[in-house]
Amino acid sequence: MKTVTAGVLLIGDELLSGRTQDTNLKTIANFLTPLGVQIGEARVLADDKDLIVSAVRTFSERFDYVFTTGGIGPTHDDITADCIAEAFGVDIGEREDAMDELLKRYEPEDLNAARRRMARIPKGASLIKNPVSMAPGFQTENVFTMAGVPQIMKAMLEDIDHRIDGGHVVLKRTVPVKGKGEGDVAESLGALSEKYPEISIGSYPFFDGNGYGLNVVLRGYDDGELADIETELRAMLDKISI
Amino acid sequence: MKTVTAGVLLIGDELLSGRTQDTNLKTIANFLTPLGVQIGEARVLADDKDLIVSAVRTFSERFDYVFTTGGIGPTHDDITADCIAEAFGVDIGEREDAMDELLKRYEPEDLNAARRRMARIPKGASLIKNPVSMAPGFQTENVFTMAGVPQIMKAMLEDIDHRIDGGHVVLKRTVPVKGKGEGDVAESLGALSEKYPEISIGSYPFFDGNGYGLNVVLRGYDDGELADIETELRAMLDKISI
Repeated sequence: MKTVTAGVLLIGDELLSGRTQDTNLKTIANFLTPLGVQIGEARVLADDKDLIVSAVRTFSERFDYVFTTGGIGPTHDDITADCIAEAFGVDIGEREDAMDELLKRYEPEDLNAARRRMARIPKGASLIKNPVSMAPGFQTENVFTMAGVPQIMKAMLEDIDHRIDGGHVVLKRTVPVKGKGEGDVAESLGALSEKYPEISIGSYPFFDGNGYGLNVVLRGYDDGELADIETELRAMLDKISI
Repeated sequence: MKTVTAGVLLIGDELLSGRTQDTNLKTIANFLTPLGVQIGEARVLADDKDLIVSAVRTFSERFDYVFTTGGIGPTHDDITADCIAEAFGVDIGEREDAMDELLKRYEPEDLNAARRRMARIPKGASLIKNPVSMAPGFQTENVFTMAGVPQIMKAMLEDIDHRIDGGHVVLKRTVPVKGKGEGDVAESLGALSEKYPEISIGSYPFFDGNGYGLNVVLRGYDDGELADIETELRAMLDKISI
């Protein structure tokens, strides 16, 4: 069974100050799931060069793929491209292919020094298309560097999926349980988890207008096995009286 | 100027699988800002003992305060309490004060083995009240361990603020700039940032029904200085024609 993993680095002071609610992690996760790639860890980092460089190196070694979001715009605090270059020990400079992308949007006279910064790409990286605002992302070895703006980030993923050599897709079955709490079913779930260590079993309580309960989610690679375990789980749950 | 920092550990497979959108980081950030505490980094971790233990140790040394969310419920994948005990090398067991809290909600006969797990607290920790569902969080040295459910997490913060020895509160001034893009003002912002390195200057583009623009946010500790810099910034922006 081939397991493929990813790490995610969400970059930007505004994500840590309470100003901005990140949504990119969930978008990336939902993009990777059908490709058979599981996120092992995500970090939210301030605009701090040393921290970013160190995290890029750590994650690039630890995971099959790394995704970064944020910090590739035109302002002084957009330092991600430089951090990636430093992490991989390569030069960085203005690149013609990236300038060509910017020229699809800007007149040459509007490409001031600040905007030209968006054409600075680490040496050897391949560009990631940005159909929204043109300024490209880029891939350096196993690290994909994307914009932080959610709409742009999402559009960039369309130019990434064909570069991913995925693994076995994780399948899931959800069993809704009404009128019971996690504490009522925890023993059954624990026993099932011990019996089938290859299956991941999660439980997620809900409270809504119609009452309370929880969803039990079974995850694994073999749908036949999952179906059998679902049957076993339902039988166990039926026996629990509260 | 006293700078007080925090690290945040968001624990749970569901945050990395795309199932659940975290909102706790933003809530914690907005709780800490008026206390003068700045978040330096956040990590989203799978339900993996070794990873959690290691991150707790690292963050506890690196930051003044650490906040963890998630993994303190009754099910087999709720392992945060054990991880905290291991990180600090202390024993963990069922505690009477925590059982007393659970007994406010449950009849003794409903406190099965699974629910009693929620009374397992690392030795020496002090409880954090949970007015929503009673199962307490706890403080171990500089680490606050809270529930993952947003409503419960938020309620627990009410029993934490009095334990925080905060720093100087960061003040901010926001200057809206209509009809200009980041690339138009980046040079001015960069110059200002170099001139006043003690001030943090962020820019956040917006696109709405009435057009586009950006908000420039100045952050610092001295409101008089911020006011002067705001005046200087506004004069610089007025000179930019696009």
